Amino acid sequence: MTFKKNFPGQANIALQLLHWTLLIIPVSVSIGLLVAFFLWLLDLATVTRQQHIWLILLLPFAGILITWLYSRWGKNSDAGNNLIMDEIHQPGGGIPARLTPLILFTTVLTHLTGGSAGREGTAVQMGGSMAALFSKWYQPNPQQKRTLLMCGMSAGFGAVFGTPVAGAIFATEVLAIGRIKYDALIPCFIAAVIADITCSLVGIHHTQYLIHFSTSNNYDLPKLLLLLKVIIAGVIFGVAGFLFAELTHFIKDKSRQFIRNKYLIPVTGALLVLGISLLIGNFDYLGLGVSNPAPGSVSIQSAFFTGGATHFSWVWKLLLTAITIGMGFKGGEVTPLFFIGATLGNSIASISGAPVDLFAGLGFIAVFAAATNTPIACTLMGAELFGAGNIFYFAAACFTAYYFSGHTGVYHAQRVAVTKF
Amino acid sequence: MTFKKNFPGQANIALQLLHWTLLIIPVSVSIGLLVAFFLWLLDLATVTRQQHIWLILLLPFAGILITWLYSRWGKNSDAGNNLIMDEIHQPGGGIPARLTPLILFTTVLTHLTGGSAGREGTAVQMGGSMAALFSKWYQPNPQQKRTLLMCGMSAGFGAVFGTPVAGAIFATEVLAIGRIKYDALIPCFIAAVIADITCSLVGIHHTQYLIHFSTSNNYDLPKLLLLLKVIIAGVIFGVAGFLFAELTHFIKDKSRQFIRNKYLIPVTGALLVLGISLLIGNFDYLGLGVSNPAPGSVSIQSAFFTGGATHFSWVWKLLLTAITIGMGFKGGEVTPLFFIGATLGNSIASISGAPVDLFAGLGFIAVFAAATNTPIACTLMGAELFGAGNIFYFAAACFTAYYFSGHTGVYHAQRVAVTKF
Repeated sequence: MTFKKNFPGQANIALQLLHWTLLIIPVSVSIGLLVAFFLWLLDLATVTRQQHIWLILLLPFAGILITWLYSRWGKNSDAGNNLIMDEIHQPGGGIPARLTPLILFTTVLTHLTGGSAGREGTAVQMGGSMAALFSKWYQPNPQQKRTLLMCGMSAGFGAVFGTPVAGAIFATEVLAIGRIKYDALIPCFIAAVIADITCSLVGIHHTQYLIHFSTSNNYDLPKLLLLLKVIIAGVIFGVAGFLFAELTHFIKDKSRQFIRNKYLIPVTGALLVLGISLLIGNFDYLGLGVSNPAPGSVSIQSAFFTGGATHFSWVWKLLLTAITIGMGFKGGEVTPLFFIGATLGNSIASISGAPVDLFAGLGFIAVFAAATNTPIACTLMGAELFGAGNIFYFAAACFTAYYFSGHTGVYHAQRVAVTKF
Repeated sequence: MTFKKNFPGQANIALQLLHWTLLIIPVSVSIGLLVAFFLWLLDLATVTRQQHIWLILLLPFAGILITWLYSRWGKNSDAGNNLIMDEIHQPGGGIPARLTPLILFTTVLTHLTGGSAGREGTAVQMGGSMAALFSKWYQPNPQQKRTLLMCGMSAGFGAVFGTPVAGAIFATEVLAIGRIKYDALIPCFIAAVIADITCSLVGIHHTQYLIHFSTSNNYDLPKLLLLLKVIIAGVIFGVAGFLFAELTHFIKDKSRQFIRNKYLIPVTGALLVLGISLLIGNFDYLGLGVSNPAPGSVSIQSAFFTGGATHFSWVWKLLLTAITIGMGFKGGEVTPLFFIGATLGNSIASISGAPVDLFAGLGFIAVFAAATNTPIACTLMGAELFGAGNIFYFAAACFTAYYFSGHTGVYHAQRVAVTKF
């Protein structure tokens, strides 16, 4: 019988867990501190830009500086998140330690001068880069190194959004479309929790979003009708995620093809961003977009209220972010995806007569699920950020959006493990 | 560029989704109705036994009848859940339609006469069997048939517990340890939702569990201390899940080895169950155990309140269920696992000074996660059943318990895709 044979295994499991926890603590605490510093800087940059709007005139120069820094010092850092993911799939040229200061500085510069970008890319890259640095000292075997890099991604993601459960699942889910492998699940979760705790203990607080809508337990007619609206919205969120990923790749490819001087690429991008903003008539779509003190402005927070977004808000944010990211500025894609989703959700709700706060929350997670192909992480993120009263709708929107985004995504290093259809 | 090439794909996705939805509706509605009928019968059997306790004297005869029915009519049905899982891994002898009436009748008989068993096995087997029946008519290709069988499992699980999100993830997660493949995720979710809606529309309501405990958003010292307690509890839940799986297999193997007459196996089991109950001095550990009208009795519901379980409650339920299931009675393992976990959680909370309702809820999902190796389905089930205020602790308990249960589990047809350590 297997009873006696297996039981001492539990002691080994405990030892192994302790071993990993001890390995992960220094890495995760470092990542948590770095992410806290980054979020603090980012907040400073955002507030400074909102108070001194002339700073956006420096966007072209910021672009030139970023391009110069990366070509002078970057080595292979320019690949960003894809570099970390490629190293996990197949160890290659390594992740240089300089990635951390480079991505940190250039992201803050992008936000200070009004580029439309996010923050998860920066956090995930700093996480991966720190994990790579520690793994030089630890000398782990290839399998352990892979786990350690995934822990770095998970810690960065978990700390930057304050969602450790989603962080752990994101790191295991994002590597390949259509599959989660659990080998690194526990270390990733430990890493995300420790980094999130560290980030919180040094005083960083995350934005709170509230969904007041709550649903009945029974399937009455209003609930079934709402489910139908959620599924239709999920299709639209999926197409929006697909459009964002495709447009970003398209702009990146075409700008490299048609603009020979590499410094002219971000300059063109900056001029486009500024020109389109002038055309729209406001600066709501620059920077992170989480909140905006200007009265009547559009932000992720405003999208949770009736009238908090226009029907074109999501188009502007999609366009400006695809240009910013596609033409050489730094940051991440995820917070803009939240913005695109929340404003699109707001718009769908106001047209279809659905609850605005619920649909803003659904768009928030579902466009992200579509563009990064991580439906389970996004469902869990919904529960972590908005509470789980509506987890049924979170899953319906994220799974549908994931399905409708096809086999594209913002990360080209993501592999297709299992085709969607 | 891939833009134009990919975009028409969305129309195909919509068509394919529509095709699957149309295929799934009749299967899922049938499963939902069957599960509703089953839950209604089960409730009737439970109430009848609680009112006429002398019925437990018939347990040995029920065992003989069940054994006779399966050996006379069962063909390969005796393999139960494993039969469905094996057919998904590798199509073989097929799933006979007679599985449905057999498992339905024998489960209700087990509960009527006081066997300690669950209901998810019955629901999942009826789901798989109905899906197999429909796939005879649909003539799908092997890949589609596999998806259809997974839909059947998902529909059964989602409807029997009223948790469609957990149902869909369970069906994709349970097949192999350490991996989720998404190819059937969307059809499984659609199937679970439709079956759950059907079950609800004909008037079946699920037990509501309430966790009043809520945590602060910041990591203060009490929260960190609580996290530590949750992880230690997770280890204990994992070992409990492991013990349950091993003991059930042990009893099954040894009773077949030492008791030559196959009818004597359930008779011995029945006498053991009755004898142990007399020894304990009450009948709280017989049947489903979700609720019990007798004052001062132990049930899953009572475990959510201080003093609602003794320190040995989980031991008795574990022992009686392992005997019941291991010696030829029918039902499922999951509701007893809920019972074992909730009472163990109650006990840990009262010893360690942690919130009783939270720890009962954690045990409820984590022992199940450990014994079936489905940590993500169980985390989501926690959010579906108890709300997501505590999803952070749900994940911590389920992931830890999953890790500590080793490579064993209640389903021997479950394969090891990725080792845990």
